[in-house]
Amino acid sequence: MHTSIATVCLSGSLEEKMEAAAEAGFAGVEIFEPDLVASELTPEEVRARAERLGLALDLYQPFRDFEGVSEELLEDNLRRAEARFRIMARLGIGTVLVCSNVSTATEDSDEVSAAQLRRLGELASAHGVRVAFEALAWGRFVDDYRRAWRIVELADHPAVGTCLDSFHILSRGHDPAGIEDIPAEKIFFVQLADAPALSLDVLSWSRHHRLFPGEGDFDLVTFLGHVVRSGYAGPISLEVFNDIFRQTASGATAAQAHRTLVALADRTAREQAGAEALPTVPAAGHPVGVDFVEVRAENTTDVEEVLDQLGLSFRGQHRSKPVRLWSAGGARIILNEQHARGERPHVAGMGLLYPDVDAAEARVSTLGVPRVTRRIQAGEHRLPAFVSPQGVELFLAAGESDATGRPGWIDEFEHGVPQDEGAEAGEAGVYAVDHLNLMSPWETYDETVHFCTGVLGLQKGTSTEVASLHGLVRSRVLRTPDGAVRVPLNVLPAAGDQHTEHVALACDDVLAVARRAQRRGMRPLPVPRNYYDDLEARFGLTDTFLRSLRAHQVMYDRDADGEFLHFYTRRVGGVFFELVQRLGDYDGYGAADAPIRLAAQARLDAEPSQLSGSARPPRRRGRSVPRQLPEW
Amino acid sequence: MHTSIATVCLSGSLEEKMEAAAEAGFAGVEIFEPDLVASELTPEEVRARAERLGLALDLYQPFRDFEGVSEELLEDNLRRAEARFRIMARLGIGTVLVCSNVSTATEDSDEVSAAQLRRLGELASAHGVRVAFEALAWGRFVDDYRRAWRIVELADHPAVGTCLDSFHILSRGHDPAGIEDIPAEKIFFVQLADAPALSLDVLSWSRHHRLFPGEGDFDLVTFLGHVVRSGYAGPISLEVFNDIFRQTASGATAAQAHRTLVALADRTAREQAGAEALPTVPAAGHPVGVDFVEVRAENTTDVEEVLDQLGLSFRGQHRSKPVRLWSAGGARIILNEQHARGERPHVAGMGLLYPDVDAAEARVSTLGVPRVTRRIQAGEHRLPAFVSPQGVELFLAAGESDATGRPGWIDEFEHGVPQDEGAEAGEAGVYAVDHLNLMSPWETYDETVHFCTGVLGLQKGTSTEVASLHGLVRSRVLRTPDGAVRVPLNVLPAAGDQHTEHVALACDDVLAVARRAQRRGMRPLPVPRNYYDDLEARFGLTDTFLRSLRAHQVMYDRDADGEFLHFYTRRVGGVFFELVQRLGDYDGYGAADAPIRLAAQARLDAEPSQLSGSARPPRRRGRSVPRQLPEW
Repeated sequence: MHTSIATVCLSGSLEEKMEAAAEAGFAGVEIFEPDLVASELTPEEVRARAERLGLALDLYQPFRDFEGVSEELLEDNLRRAEARFRIMARLGIGTVLVCSNVSTATEDSDEVSAAQLRRLGELASAHGVRVAFEALAWGRFVDDYRRAWRIVELADHPAVGTCLDSFHILSRGHDPAGIEDIPAEKIFFVQLADAPALSLDVLSWSRHHRLFPGEGDFDLVTFLGHVVRSGYAGPISLEVFNDIFRQTASGATAAQAHRTLVALADRTAREQAGAEALPTVPAAGHPVGVDFVEVRAENTTDVEEVLDQLGLSFRGQHRSKPVRLWSAGGARIILNEQHARGERPHVAGMGLLYPDVDAAEARVSTLGVPRVTRRIQAGEHRLPAFVSPQGVELFLAAGESDATGRPGWIDEFEHGVPQDEGAEAGEAGVYAVDHLNLMSPWETYDETVHFCTGVLGLQKGTSTEVASLHGLVRSRVLRTPDGAVRVPLNVLPAAGDQHTEHVALACDDVLAVARRAQRRGMRPLPVPRNYYDDLEARFGLTDTFLRSLRAHQVMYDRDADGEFLHFYTRRVGGVFFELVQRLGDYDGYGAADAPIRLAAQARLDAEPSQLSGSARPPRRRGRSVPRQLPEW
Repeated sequence: MHTSIATVCLSGSLEEKMEAAAEAGFAGVEIFEPDLVASELTPEEVRARAERLGLALDLYQPFRDFEGVSEELLEDNLRRAEARFRIMARLGIGTVLVCSNVSTATEDSDEVSAAQLRRLGELASAHGVRVAFEALAWGRFVDDYRRAWRIVELADHPAVGTCLDSFHILSRGHDPAGIEDIPAEKIFFVQLADAPALSLDVLSWSRHHRLFPGEGDFDLVTFLGHVVRSGYAGPISLEVFNDIFRQTASGATAAQAHRTLVALADRTAREQAGAEALPTVPAAGHPVGVDFVEVRAENTTDVEEVLDQLGLSFRGQHRSKPVRLWSAGGARIILNEQHARGERPHVAGMGLLYPDVDAAEARVSTLGVPRVTRRIQAGEHRLPAFVSPQGVELFLAAGESDATGRPGWIDEFEHGVPQDEGAEAGEAGVYAVDHLNLMSPWETYDETVHFCTGVLGLQKGTSTEVASLHGLVRSRVLRTPDGAVRVPLNVLPAAGDQHTEHVALACDDVLAVARRAQRRGMRPLPVPRNYYDDLEARFGLTDTFLRSLRAHQVMYDRDADGEFLHFYTRRVGGVFFELVQRLGDYDGYGAADAPIRLAAQARLDAEPSQLSGSARPPRRRGRSVPRQLPEW
């Protein structure tokens, strides 16, 4: 597969874009004309630079508003085209993209467009180039790839073929199966772009919201299957523009682009009949459980205090590093003070269990995810580690499930309560990591989603928006079908809310865990009384049950599948814990409670500094003497 | 007019929202239920707080998914509603907003919905409250305000009326004239929101893109005219949520909201028959010219050098301040070194000429725009000054036009070339400020647009998007009909490009200005050769003309109305100058050239630090010896 990428996908100058594409592993690029026009490099210099980088110049694009015009305009369009052909000759590019006319077309006629494209083909031939005609989704008359192909067929000139762009085809809901009806030699170019499902006008949708393959909602596997079965063997190129990539370093974007294209080819080869020739990468299935969550800080004592209150047990100190392990059942939390000077507690890593860890490592590595070096001593376990796009380190371990297995690395921890003891923890019934709530800046959000799905094998779950005091927080759950691994991923708002992530622990009796934790001095995140009045209004709960929830600041949700009880600890630096209990087949996360939680956290944040005294009721207590809630 | 605002419009806690609304001058608020639920204040405390602030609690909202349901669901909905009525009694709120059902409705029947609303009205009466039924634009069956009114009419209960929301009516394209057919006593509430013209699904459009009146594209003047003529005299409330306000300080948002509502009432009173009773503010028409542009810096010497090269003359030093004046014809640039320690050159202010400057000052002041204090001595002119939302200071002066008048304040500048001299400037033909290109962070963009239009009297011109190396830059021109004042306003991109603004000077012969400026040592912003190759391809210009443009780095545009020639100076700190010449009726700004300009600026920015040597051709010259272009 000859991989290519349009320079419009990347930020920076033309030479920076070409360097980035080559570095990421692309075989070629499409030259976006405005990038050339704004460049200081002459066409000859661009050509020489590409040769030095080993990069093919696959396409010159776009040439606009050519066909379907009056005879007078056609003459001017041919003149415009010839000037471009001369520039292409200097660049050494053999194919030009001609988009269907969006503004100056006056003739809604296949015959007229075909005749005019034939004229263009004759001119192109004379300059040794080929014309790839593409239907734009918002073309004035030609907005369907099947019509573009009919016109190309009618034009009947060897230098005139068609270009297929997944965005223009799938955004209109056109069936891509017709691609297989086009002779391969008449498909001159193929461009891929994904996009989220939006009902927006196609022009804005295209201009601002295209995504790389697998990051959006288009079925590009089926699309690419049709392309391969048509016999087309030319460049498979990415043409993706959105408001994010243009603001992101070109190197990172190019690496992400290449990874998504390789992952798409892999999936297509596996799932589409006749597409077996596409290159593949090792398969790893999906993770079967969470091995551990790592919290890092210069000093993790405050986190230990919370874990102790929640009923987890200290399992030992690592034999060679300042790293400590706490656990209850299959919920394992690693506290890492190594190389963490000045860092407040935060989620730094996550271990995932794969049945075939070698395959998983090979897959992640082949897809170009950067590795983390973990120093180990003789006799210590080697856990392959990588960095996710949003910065959390990912460790891969062999295992069948989190709750039953006893990871080999556990023996590296010494002087703690033996793994099979911890009766109290057993009582409390904390038994697993239910989910790990991560945040991503908006710039890396879609890339992180692809990392979790296309690389790690998780699936996309529900997507929601949660109201915080400072904006709507976009959230999407990435998970395994059975829920053994669940990662709700939130967009970090541009301003206001803090970068806070949290670990949710599953237990059998959340009220019992809360009761015992409070006996041990834990102060849960306070929940306003109005919340419980509202719970009553929404669900009509019994007074006894409501009182019990309120006494322990436990929140409640219910849907058609079951019920959900949960409470939050206060924040320790940039991390906090949630204890959850699922009843019936409840499969959500209490999304309605998230705004209450965010407001309560904001109140606690505002407390110490008394930011706007006049806007708040008078407070007499400072930071060290926290407000007491009447409930306990 | 009883002004109100929904708490969902503002950020922060409920008490912060209420404080901000009262401070901004609103008479009341709508309590958004989730704001109450997340609040620590009990309903009784909220009520007491509102009383202390002198704020009416006008509406409790929203109650969802009530009508059109099965009998069984109705019972549960009545139970849910009664719980809310009890909370409303504690708050002392008399009206609840009931939205048309978007999810659980199964009965598409006016009669069923009316009968169920009557049941609700009976229950509401018993609790002393009223029900305002509103058609949501995405209601399952009821999505038209006229149908909501039919149902209210059928329900025929004194406690059941309707709520009108401009967004739900205008986003569906429904004619608001029917509002006048509704008896005033059955309109229980009116909500206003503006929005940009987007073809997006109405739910996303509503949730993310509502704007305050006058900031978007809805005709709210006509809408409010219908409301007033219906006889309605209750609260006029703003219900506006978008991604920006939620992230902005509540005080600033509330002030902006109040200003837009007052400006809307003013315009409606003036333009709509029968709406004369609405409150007005002084009228000022629109500005007739640019008095001056002020550039501020600790040291403005580099700017003086550029102005000298461009043919402007030094007109004197201010008699009491470190401020200097340069001009040519009606183009006046004030260079201000007062209180500018550490500041690099930037556009700090702008003077606008109004025929009735007292009226203009009264208008700006009445609309609550913050003033700037200018210290003056005896005998010096008093120029009223205000701060625009994006930070530029605005000075108001009396005058008929920029080019012919001789402002009174000019006599405060001494020891310069007399105003009527400056032959060379006359030769060069620089005669006016053509436009002032300002930037705004995205958070204040819509507010700045409203400031320029609703407050200053400019009009909205075309809106475009310009590709920079680091993102699409949204741009909209604000101007007078005759073009005497033109302010293209760009969104400051989130990352990458610098905050740079520029002053465009109009001249009669841009090639002559460029030629003379280069003789005096000016180095214009370099334009790549490829740009001129592309010009040839696009416009088929003659070789002689192209060579002449290229020799002076002058750029070119043409449209159906005329031609445009212009060149840019290099950046001096955060400001640069553009020289423009308009031929025929060309009314644009050479938008196609902006990406070339941005790329050239980015190259110059990258030069001194040699950021990525490997990605660029080797350069042997450092910062102090700039690269020479072969053209000059």
